[in-house]
Amino acid sequence: MQSLAAFTVPAIADISDAPLTARLQHLLDNKTKPLGSLGRLEALALRIGQVLGTEAPALLQPQMLVCAGDHGLAAKGVSAFPSDVTWQMVENFLAGGAAVSVLARQHGLQLTVVDCGVARPIAQRETAPGAPRLLVHKVAPGTADASVGPAMTAEQCAQAIANGMEVVRGLPGNALLLGEMGIGNTSVASLLLARLAGLPLAEVTGAGTGLDAAGIERKRAVLQQALDANADATTPLAALAALGGYEVATLVGAVLQAALERRVIVVDGFITSAAVLVASRLQPAVLQRCVFAHRSGERGHALMLAQMQAEPLLDLGLRLGEGSGAALAWPLLQSACAVLAEMASFESAGVATQTA
Amino acid sequence: MQSLAAFTVPAIADISDAPLTARLQHLLDNKTKPLGSLGRLEALALRIGQVLGTEAPALLQPQMLVCAGDHGLAAKGVSAFPSDVTWQMVENFLAGGAAVSVLARQHGLQLTVVDCGVARPIAQRETAPGAPRLLVHKVAPGTADASVGPAMTAEQCAQAIANGMEVVRGLPGNALLLGEMGIGNTSVASLLLARLAGLPLAEVTGAGTGLDAAGIERKRAVLQQALDANADATTPLAALAALGGYEVATLVGAVLQAALERRVIVVDGFITSAAVLVASRLQPAVLQRCVFAHRSGERGHALMLAQMQAEPLLDLGLRLGEGSGAALAWPLLQSACAVLAEMASFESAGVATQTA
Repeated sequence: MQSLAAFTVPAIADISDAPLTARLQHLLDNKTKPLGSLGRLEALALRIGQVLGTEAPALLQPQMLVCAGDHGLAAKGVSAFPSDVTWQMVENFLAGGAAVSVLARQHGLQLTVVDCGVARPIAQRETAPGAPRLLVHKVAPGTADASVGPAMTAEQCAQAIANGMEVVRGLPGNALLLGEMGIGNTSVASLLLARLAGLPLAEVTGAGTGLDAAGIERKRAVLQQALDANADATTPLAALAALGGYEVATLVGAVLQAALERRVIVVDGFITSAAVLVASRLQPAVLQRCVFAHRSGERGHALMLAQMQAEPLLDLGLRLGEGSGAALAWPLLQSACAVLAEMASFESAGVATQTA
Repeated sequence: MQSLAAFTVPAIADISDAPLTARLQHLLDNKTKPLGSLGRLEALALRIGQVLGTEAPALLQPQMLVCAGDHGLAAKGVSAFPSDVTWQMVENFLAGGAAVSVLARQHGLQLTVVDCGVARPIAQRETAPGAPRLLVHKVAPGTADASVGPAMTAEQCAQAIANGMEVVRGLPGNALLLGEMGIGNTSVASLLLARLAGLPLAEVTGAGTGLDAAGIERKRAVLQQALDANADATTPLAALAALGGYEVATLVGAVLQAALERRVIVVDGFITSAAVLVASRLQPAVLQRCVFAHRSGERGHALMLAQMQAEPLLDLGLRLGEGSGAALAWPLLQSACAVLAEMASFESAGVATQTA
């Protein structure tokens, strides 16, 4: 078991339960519909039932957790937007005007924004019940520049992971949707994918918020410097500390804690997937708790999903992050549970079964 | 302009409005997100805005319309289920236990089931406000066997289309979701696609509710007989009468009327797409009003979508019909409107714009 300074990775149990799976499959097969005709929605119902350990899964008090942080690397021009946009967008999340705010409101998802390491101080404020709220778990005002050395010390990284675990322990409900904000964090996700999967940067470096071809080329060169400057960081935790960001490390902790508690984890796009990749390299059974919401338009995400044998629900060319894709997919999880709970069986509805 | 006995196809106006599109695009581009980063959701917002003719589209009183009918062709063994399942499933829709009932309830869609030509009488009943309701517009108790001659007379087909127009005239709201039920109706959709697009039956004939390879081969042979027996039915309306079903013809009328009234039309799977294909061959501008919910797992649907240059929202291997895929996609339409209405602009939120 890996550990990092003060942090020890919790053991995540294998929750595969063949008898429960068989009972869930039997339930689905007896619903009034041709066998398998709800396609991926049936696999989703099986997954949710397995995570929650029941034939009658009900999603309760879903929590949208958006982790935010800044990146020293951003000073090297890896993003189309300035670092100030991180805190500006955090303010926008809290004011209710960002995409994730709008979508969380639409679907009744409680939105919690965590300042994991935003460069500028963000003021705590009073919020009405149900409104977006801020938690401050700032390890430092942004990471160091990973292109010249480690982004975080081992202690800082361990603190961020512990923060994520603590945040999730304090949240109610049995479903956690993952979101993030941090100018420069597609760079972090690309670096973690390149390092942990051994993929070339050219295949995993994308446009992020909107770089042109020359911009992507400059970004790729900076990322190569970061890999070179942190060549010895090869284990998942060492790579996370050296290349990662505070919001990604906090998400790793959140994923581990949610997995420990058997919450349904709804993964958004490229950056939250990077956190799940790290967590799953530490404890593979976290993947049993995950639902991947969508395939992002960001280059590298499809390769990252493949690393985890993940089949996402949506493929809409989204590349916004924030948790917006997780929120968009959320009603499908509710539908999967509704189908299990509310559809009639052939017997109960008096419908004839297949004859051919 | 084609006409069929007593029925004259209404003219459907071109609603493309370049200035409105430009205003909608400007709104989207100034929302606090990287340009285009909401992917297909942005195209969806543009589409809904164009149909409703406004920069502030709001979806009101969405109606799920499920048209049901039986098919003489079913006696030839083209389905894995017996024809009795049509009325049994209509009862199940009304009792609230079918997939479309469950999903319509989840999303607040008013469910109206129309008996367009079910073989067995279905009793009218009292229903509570908001509960699924039945309308009886039965032209005949099932079509004739299309493998030996026309499924409907021209008059019967015209009556079914007129019924669909009347039904939609009586529904409130500005959004119509299409659904259907009818044992044997994937055969109808395959026949209409083969005839109207000139595609070989081998490419457009699928498993329907669950035929095995030998069953599909038998089905294909029956469908070939139907094409041969109705070789002279080459125009859209003649093909619909000769090959179609009452539920498909009623849906064609519903699509034309909804298009005339500029409702947003949410198309489900293979069978409702066949109705839209017929309607769009009569009046191409109906497609401007359509949102295609999903790509079905039924063979032929991808080819049918291509005929209409349609890009569906979901691709979940669904092949249930009923309107279930349209209901599953519905929250995405609501999200598209919410993004337009509720997201902050860069200016209103004080967020810096792109620098690179």
